[in-house]
Amino acid sequence: MKKDFIDFNDMSMEEWDRLYALCEDIIEHKDRYKRVCEGKILATPFFEPSTRTFFSFQSAMIRLGGNYIEFSDYNTSSVSKGENLKDTIKTIANYADIIAMRHPVEGAATAAALYSKIPVINAGDGGHLHPTQTLTDLVTIKRKKGTLSGFKIGICGDLLNGRTVHSLIKALSRFKNNEFILISTKELRVPSYITDFLNKHNQKFKEVYSLDDCISELDILYMTRIQRERFSSIEEYNRQANVYKLDTNKLSRARKDLIVMHPLPKVDEITYDADEDKRCIYFDQAEYGMYIRMALIMTLIENNEMKKGEPVGPFMKGKKKCSNEKCITVKEPYLDCLVKVSESGKTLCAYCDHEIVE
Amino acid sequence: MKKDFIDFNDMSMEEWDRLYALCEDIIEHKDRYKRVCEGKILATPFFEPSTRTFFSFQSAMIRLGGNYIEFSDYNTSSVSKGENLKDTIKTIANYADIIAMRHPVEGAATAAALYSKIPVINAGDGGHLHPTQTLTDLVTIKRKKGTLSGFKIGICGDLLNGRTVHSLIKALSRFKNNEFILISTKELRVPSYITDFLNKHNQKFKEVYSLDDCISELDILYMTRIQRERFSSIEEYNRQANVYKLDTNKLSRARKDLIVMHPLPKVDEITYDADEDKRCIYFDQAEYGMYIRMALIMTLIENNEMKKGEPVGPFMKGKKKCSNEKCITVKEPYLDCLVKVSESGKTLCAYCDHEIVE
Amino acid sequence: MKKDFIDFNDMSMEEWDRLYALCEDIIEHKDRYKRVCEGKILATPFFEPSTRTFFSFQSAMIRLGGNYIEFSDYNTSSVSKGENLKDTIKTIANYADIIAMRHPVEGAATAAALYSKIPVINAGDGGHLHPTQTLTDLVTIKRKKGTLSGFKIGICGDLLNGRTVHSLIKALSRFKNNEFILISTKELRVPSYITDFLNKHNQKFKEVYSLDDCISELDILYMTRIQRERFSSIEEYNRQANVYKLDTNKLSRARKDLIVMHPLPKVDEITYDADEDKRCIYFDQAEYGMYIRMALIMTLIENNEMKKGEPVGPFMKGKKKCSNEKCITVKEPYLDCLVKVSESGKTLCAYCDHEIVE
Repeated sequence: MKKDFIDFNDMSMEEWDRLYALCEDIIEHKDRYKRVCEGKILATPFFEPSTRTFFSFQSAMIRLGGNYIEFSDYNTSSVSKGENLKDTIKTIANYADIIAMRHPVEGAATAAALYSKIPVINAGDGGHLHPTQTLTDLVTIKRKKGTLSGFKIGICGDLLNGRTVHSLIKALSRFKNNEFILISTKELRVPSYITDFLNKHNQKFKEVYSLDDCISELDILYMTRIQRERFSSIEEYNRQANVYKLDTNKLSRARKDLIVMHPLPKVDEITYDADEDKRCIYFDQAEYGMYIRMALIMTLIENNEMKKGEPVGPFMKGKKKCSNEKCITVKEPYLDCLVKVSESGKTLCAYCDHEIVE
Repeated sequence: MKKDFIDFNDMSMEEWDRLYALCEDIIEHKDRYKRVCEGKILATPFFEPSTRTFFSFQSAMIRLGGNYIEFSDYNTSSVSKGENLKDTIKTIANYADIIAMRHPVEGAATAAALYSKIPVINAGDGGHLHPTQTLTDLVTIKRKKGTLSGFKIGICGDLLNGRTVHSLIKALSRFKNNEFILISTKELRVPSYITDFLNKHNQKFKEVYSLDDCISELDILYMTRIQRERFSSIEEYNRQANVYKLDTNKLSRARKDLIVMHPLPKVDEITYDADEDKRCIYFDQAEYGMYIRMALIMTLIENNEMKKGEPVGPFMKGKKKCSNEKCITVKEPYLDCLVKVSESGKTLCAYCDHEIVE
Repeated sequence: MKKDFIDFNDMSMEEWDRLYALCEDIIEHKDRYKRVCEGKILATPFFEPSTRTFFSFQSAMIRLGGNYIEFSDYNTSSVSKGENLKDTIKTIANYADIIAMRHPVEGAATAAALYSKIPVINAGDGGHLHPTQTLTDLVTIKRKKGTLSGFKIGICGDLLNGRTVHSLIKALSRFKNNEFILISTKELRVPSYITDFLNKHNQKFKEVYSLDDCISELDILYMTRIQRERFSSIEEYNRQANVYKLDTNKLSRARKDLIVMHPLPKVDEITYDADEDKRCIYFDQAEYGMYIRMALIMTLIENNEMKKGEPVGPFMKGKKKCSNEKCITVKEPYLDCLVKVSESGKTLCAYCDHEIVE
């Protein structure tokens, strides 16, 4: 197993099965786990705020009997004195037993993993990945529906900018017979690399405009927030937002066993009365997020203490700098140019997964 | 017993007696309590800062063997992404075992209690209530004076804006033979609803201008901060502030067994030399605040785990929105219009206690 | 032993030896110490940010089985409501078992110690002292080199403004046969009171301009950050900074058993490739910092609980206010004028150590 948890795809199906089994056991027998991380420290360097992920990780560690240290402010840390990420991570790795890191720059988690002697969990690296959200989503589906296969999954809202959504699509494609209904405006469709991915993996999917038209056929509806700023004007927003708003009217046509998921926080994409519907299970989803993080923290610490953690990678030395201007290699110039090869034979930046054309 | 602790008046005298007895036992036998909340989590969502209340709750939870999660910043939380209070509370309730919440808006604690599956402690909701301060004050008097009855209690300073003072007056009226000496400028007198309350409950009280004139007859002197902004001009402040400043000269005429209390923080309403007087016991008061919070946290968690907590209320559906513009129902429009009936038969907003004229 | 830890020089050689022995035992047998501070609370009031010191103290306390409470924000605390330091400390002392305090004003730690019933650790008071950094440095040298005597120690960079450096020089002068090579620009030389001190204590030292010229003779190289603002112009900085930059070229001429230390965070005073050299042991140094803080916290709490802590001082009443405008007595006017007598018979401010000319 890897030392770190950077990307859900780094985890084999066996590792996922084991992690899920542990998560279930934690849910069923909470008391058995309340001291397994006694005396252990989770460091939560969050280089951008995310209250909910923060709380989830900290609660998870406390419920394992451990404790946490945290950045208390985003502008006042050593970082603002000009320290590089490598030094920050090497220092923290001396104090803690595991790191859950949030960073606004793509590939930062991989960079941290390269320099950390303790496990690094990617708690979000810019627009790139947020794999513990993916774990949360999978656990929720499995707990609520019994399996991860054979579903019609509607994903609704901003499909262009949502890393959560992209990761979920990729993850669910590893299970059998799922079909994706991608519901969005023309401007907020999934990027072409996702449709390429779906085609390549022979996944059934369709792209539709109206939530109303497809809601009755769905097993799972995954809602996301559409930010006003994504629309060309406020008029355009007002005109279209309603199409994606979940209300009791739409819900009345949905299956009785539908589950409505949401990564939270939500704003107004679900109306107040729809919010009361039993099929809306996003607060349970948040709770499962804590349990799967408990399973993850416990597994990674154990793995590292038994010196069984494999390093991130395998990567090779690249010949050319990554051209993605949001990549961590731009901000942290001492980082080696590292690459990996994608399934389809492309050369990708080892940090941010952007293709490197040589 | 109620699931939540929103208002001291929701607590019966029996419940208060039991809570006080537990608090005394904690003070006498600290070691017996150091693991009773092992593995439990206190969430401290503070939507406005209050270092001292924050510290007091966190210390209380640690001394019970539990731990805490906290908002680390008031501007960077999910709240600033537009999430409503209901969602924030429902999420936190999944991570923690009890919530101590501070919020700038009146009635926010009741709103939170309606949506939380775990107990909510009101750690201050705007200018409305701050009931753990009231508990602190009562414990202090009882510990220092042996009883809560039969005292002449001077309350000095800003009596108009101090929720602490209003709550204390109401609370002490539940005990026998107390007399209130309300010491303030004309502009900062207690609001009429407090004098109405005192009259209605046949409480002895008088309103006076000068601390000097009455200090010799007091058993208890409760000092509060007068903010400069409360005066019409800086000259006016300078002219009057001295009348309310406690100095060694005034103290020399006070009883030997006087106790001087203060909710803290103080600024210059007590002179440096008066501060050294043994009768000034406000730092002990702060310490008692931690012990009574330990008793409260422990009691509410136990009560909730045994499914014995009664919901806030009883409330009825109201016909009209609360007209108090500082009420939480204004900021959080999905909240039901709920009302309750006061002792004197008036219809009050269930959240902020303002009268609703129908 | 003193109740507080304000200045390394307040510690006798015997006390240092005992503390170091405890630190070594902690490093060797971490598990034996993981519950010694169970139920105890470290308060970390940091009146200015310092992520790394913060983390180090908190980790130390957690690894002893204790917990911490912290200021979550520097602008929103009670302090900004105008509360004085004395009240803040007296309140915190009710909640916690030990305080590690960081403050931007010189002498603040001594002021706090005067009013605290629990031990105060000085985690940095303005430009005055930072004694747990000194402990960290000494432990690092002793662990890496076996002793604290007989070394040629190069100290490089900003020697004028670095309290870390001044404390280290004084501390190492208490051990035998050390020689100091003080490497800096003319503008950033050590202040004259340090050279006076070295002369008075018959310490061997020389002041040199070039790191290149002396690196080959050093046993220990202590690097510090030179802030750009210290130079008259950016051109001047660019011209000189290179002289003090540690690179592989300079390292190639250094001894095989050299150790390179740094208080961290560093910026660009050590090049990326030099950073990989095994002789650069500053991340180990950071780790030792945590262990010696564990030893210190444990020792002071034990000492205080057995009522064996001697108060700060001895001090005498002074006749004149301290003239150092950065002294805590300026900001907190209720503080008594206290003085002490230096080795050389001068009258010094008891808080900030500035000479008081009477």
